[in-house]
Amino acid sequence: MPAETVVASGLVERIGLEDGAIHYKDQKDKISLTLPIPNHATGLAQVAKMLMDEKTGVIKDVAEIDLVGHRVVHGGKKFSDPVEVTQEIKDKIRDLILLAPLHNPPNLDGIEVAEKIFTKSKQIALFDTAFHQTLPAVAYKYAISNKFLTEDNVRVYGFHGLSHKYVTDRAVEFLDKPDAKLISIHLGNGCSMTAVQNGKSLDHTLGFGPNDGLIMGTRSGAIDQSVIFFLMDKYNYTKEEIINILSKESGMLGLTGYSDLRDIEAQAEQGNKDCILALEMNAYRVKKFIGAYTAALNGLDAIIFTAGIGENSSTIRRMICEQMDYFGIELDDALNEERLPNIRSINTANSKTKILIVPTNEELEIATECFVNFK
Amino acid sequence: MPAETVVASGLVERIGLEDGAIHYKDQKDKISLTLPIPNHATGLAQVAKMLMDEKTGVIKDVAEIDLVGHRVVHGGKKFSDPVEVTQEIKDKIRDLILLAPLHNPPNLDGIEVAEKIFTKSKQIALFDTAFHQTLPAVAYKYAISNKFLTEDNVRVYGFHGLSHKYVTDRAVEFLDKPDAKLISIHLGNGCSMTAVQNGKSLDHTLGFGPNDGLIMGTRSGAIDQSVIFFLMDKYNYTKEEIINILSKESGMLGLTGYSDLRDIEAQAEQGNKDCILALEMNAYRVKKFIGAYTAALNGLDAIIFTAGIGENSSTIRRMICEQMDYFGIELDDALNEERLPNIRSINTANSKTKILIVPTNEELEIATECFVNFK
Repeated sequence: MPAETVVASGLVERIGLEDGAIHYKDQKDKISLTLPIPNHATGLAQVAKMLMDEKTGVIKDVAEIDLVGHRVVHGGKKFSDPVEVTQEIKDKIRDLILLAPLHNPPNLDGIEVAEKIFTKSKQIALFDTAFHQTLPAVAYKYAISNKFLTEDNVRVYGFHGLSHKYVTDRAVEFLDKPDAKLISIHLGNGCSMTAVQNGKSLDHTLGFGPNDGLIMGTRSGAIDQSVIFFLMDKYNYTKEEIINILSKESGMLGLTGYSDLRDIEAQAEQGNKDCILALEMNAYRVKKFIGAYTAALNGLDAIIFTAGIGENSSTIRRMICEQMDYFGIELDDALNEERLPNIRSINTANSKTKILIVPTNEELEIATECFVNFK
Repeated sequence: MPAETVVASGLVERIGLEDGAIHYKDQKDKISLTLPIPNHATGLAQVAKMLMDEKTGVIKDVAEIDLVGHRVVHGGKKFSDPVEVTQEIKDKIRDLILLAPLHNPPNLDGIEVAEKIFTKSKQIALFDTAFHQTLPAVAYKYAISNKFLTEDNVRVYGFHGLSHKYVTDRAVEFLDKPDAKLISIHLGNGCSMTAVQNGKSLDHTLGFGPNDGLIMGTRSGAIDQSVIFFLMDKYNYTKEEIINILSKESGMLGLTGYSDLRDIEAQAEQGNKDCILALEMNAYRVKKFIGAYTAALNGLDAIIFTAGIGENSSTIRRMICEQMDYFGIELDDALNEERLPNIRSINTANSKTKILIVPTNEELEIATECFVNFK
């Protein structure tokens, strides 16, 4: 930084399993190792070792790293900006485990392991909820007793904030319109949409937890509460069982038997009716949120497709943009089919609303925030 | 019928309580009685007695009644039209009690009591779900395992169908546009919205049960599922307790302490911040569904306000229509304030989208359906 050059990147996966893996890539090497990685500490120690490897490494000493940026899923209402990690910050992240029981504990692990390895670096925490702290009360409040907000902090927090912030900032530059009314559509492993104007998140499809709004790979998204109570009654499901069903066995998987969109698209092309309908349901729900957020913004300059599915599935993009000319949305089919790595518009020349593909880059967003605020 | 003259009307209330009441009104008399009404049978017998009363009655013999129309809340996927009641039909309504445990049993009671009193009349059942049987699969299906649809009939059924059908039919006549793209906004004790074109319901905010979508007097409307699980965890609520909280202690009541919109508007005028915000939240959610259904319809000819609040609260109508010019919605403030009993438009002359108030009349809808189909 500030050149935004990727010096090295990598991924540690299947932590805790026998066939753990580390992928490492720099400007000359690309290495994948399979080995048992019992915990986050071993994984990150291995990463540090690869970064400093005499032959393939990019640094000689951990002290060369100035800043380590940590993505923390839940910052509650305490964090609307990146912060340097202190004991107090760690305690606050720990307090928020109640709100993100699956995510904040490993995020905290990552920080504590990094503190032990990168002893000379500043540790910076960036929160996926932070971008949505600008939501107005009409958007973040649920229509339940006020005491659940004041005493229990039950409200919309939202997620994928680093991604939504990154792509909407890029879109504003691309359009050269700081007050552009934008709807950012993040379709990946998780899916969410955000209404943004003047760089501020104004509404968002994910809420208090990570399963609301759009249909996801294995998650139901929004569902009528009475369905939950009916199924608990009928099958005697416990709360844990119904949470598991709605988050792991629903969404595209529940509708089709497949959770990977590429499989579903391939099946749909061969005439699989469940797959065709599931794609239509998926697109229909996105369309409805485009409408809803256009109402929230009272206007629409551009919609933005991003993340794995949003950037790569021309089929889903086409289905979402079909029959949306009332919103000035007119897709150019040829541009939609092009596979390019850069930010670009894929609407027709006459389309009143711009349709953008903006490759998301949460790592760059983290690096930039760290560099701008703490270097 | 077919003159649509109201010969007599009435209401039985507080059945089962000591201070039960019967209200009766015809073209010359208006009577209210307070007496214990132990059950539906006593209540309806009393109604029949008043209809045949020598001095104030309008008929001499129950045999003069050709048709008795019964509003039945849940018709499942079995009923998309009114039907003459037979033993088989009653069995089917009984089968559906699982889906509408609070409503179908008294509806069935009403039918069986009427059969005993109006022995010469045809009993006709009309279902509040029937109008929504035209919903396409993208709108009625939830993103959960298909087996819950095929084996358990879990899907969107919708409610307030007689009202939405009545007001959208009237709007089509008023606009003289059979293929008008309409959004009907029913704001009363319960609240729901429907997207309608060519006389068909295409999407609807209530779903499998009666608490989804809009914010209601005491009902939360749509809520992130994780809020439900969190509150059950934190307070050890049973399923029944959380259902009670979400349907009886939430919505406008939970947000303000008041469930009657007139009280809330009065408080808001005096500066009560909770009340101001609750009205804004209520209107914001309606706005978002206007956007969503405009996307579903890819266009919008008119929005329709109906039912107690929709017909009478100029404040809520104004708040919903504010900042919606992108949708061609422009309210005429003077017309909005007029209190008139008839169907009318309250938009400015230039408003691309018409804003209509259509007084709902479910009784007339029932009478008409009965007359057209069974006389």
